Amino acid sequence: MPYITLNSSEPGIRGLLQYRPETGRPLSELAEVLLRGPGTLTRGERELIAAYVSALNDCRYCTGSHSACAAAQLPGGMPVVEQVRADPASAPVSAKLKALLQIAAAVQRSGLDVTADDVARARAEGATDLEIHDTVLIAAAFCMLNRYVDGLATIAPDDPAPYAAGAQRLITQGYLPP
Amino acid sequence: MPYITLNSSEPGIRGLLQYRPETGRPLSELAEVLLRGPGTLTRGERELIAAYVSALNDCRYCTGSHSACAAAQLPGGMPVVEQVRADPASAPVSAKLKALLQIAAAVQRSGLDVTADDVARARAEGATDLEIHDTVLIAAAFCMLNRYVDGLATIAPDDPAPYAAGAQRLITQGYLPP
Repeated sequence: MPYITLNSSEPGIRGLLQYRPETGRPLSELAEVLLRGPGTLTRGERELIAAYVSALNDCRYCTGSHSACAAAQLPGGMPVVEQVRADPASAPVSAKLKALLQIAAAVQRSGLDVTADDVARARAEGATDLEIHDTVLIAAAFCMLNRYVDGLATIAPDDPAPYAAGAQRLITQGYLPP
Repeated sequence: MPYITLNSSEPGIRGLLQYRPETGRPLSELAEVLLRGPGTLTRGERELIAAYVSALNDCRYCTGSHSACAAAQLPGGMPVVEQVRADPASAPVSAKLKALLQIAAAVQRSGLDVTADDVARARAEGATDLEIHDTVLIAAAFCMLNRYVDGLATIAPDDPAPYAAGAQRLITQGYLPP
């Protein structure tokens, strides 16, 4: 039961974007650029970073939603998403993505926790400045979105079906409002 | 010394907004709506929430910048900002603002830390649903911005003068790019 009276029964961030379209529009645009815009990280890899940070923040809605988006766009599907959430170091993803996930985990704790060594490791594995930038901003953005969704106690379904359906909609239509 | 090569020597978020205008634009629009758009919290009160959360996150650049913006727009000036950062409960601000600052502090830790009691207290002191919403989103947004600025090790001047000058520019021109 959300702490404020929303104007829809949509779960998670969806109800909040509709409640306050003035803030919903830039939030949607930010997600569209970071998760679906042109870039050298695949959409699946970017959704995986979002899912991983959301899980670290214990945000059930965002973890469900972005795990489903990542699973539908990564070759390894949901098993790889679950392995990354459990232990990125041993998960079957590239060394570059492991290094970027380590940066994302530091950002989740505090921006001040990202070290020059973390960045050097990512660069040694082939990450570009823009990939490092976007990883930091994706992780930081989900530290916002997770707090927004849970700070207002929005609804987070237990059933995985609505997350999978939502992921199909996001993958085909994107994050911008219709 | 920032971890990535920026295309300007601007400190803090300013260099990042210029480096990646595709994400800079929605970030600037979000700040403009939340901190300067129409609303029943004064601009000074909203900047105070931003400064308080940035201080809790130990983000020197954002704390300096938004403390200066709050000080320039609040009747009590910088002494009140410093009292709020030290202890909101005893600071000379309204009971409603104290309750909203308590919500902001919970959001800074985790969205899951905001309780129904926190929200009920704010409502009892006269806060509206929209004020509670915007407080949660301002606090959450600064949990993103602080991580973005520090996660990439951007420059944060020690001297208070550039923050005061930047505040005057933000107060007169706003957050949108020119």
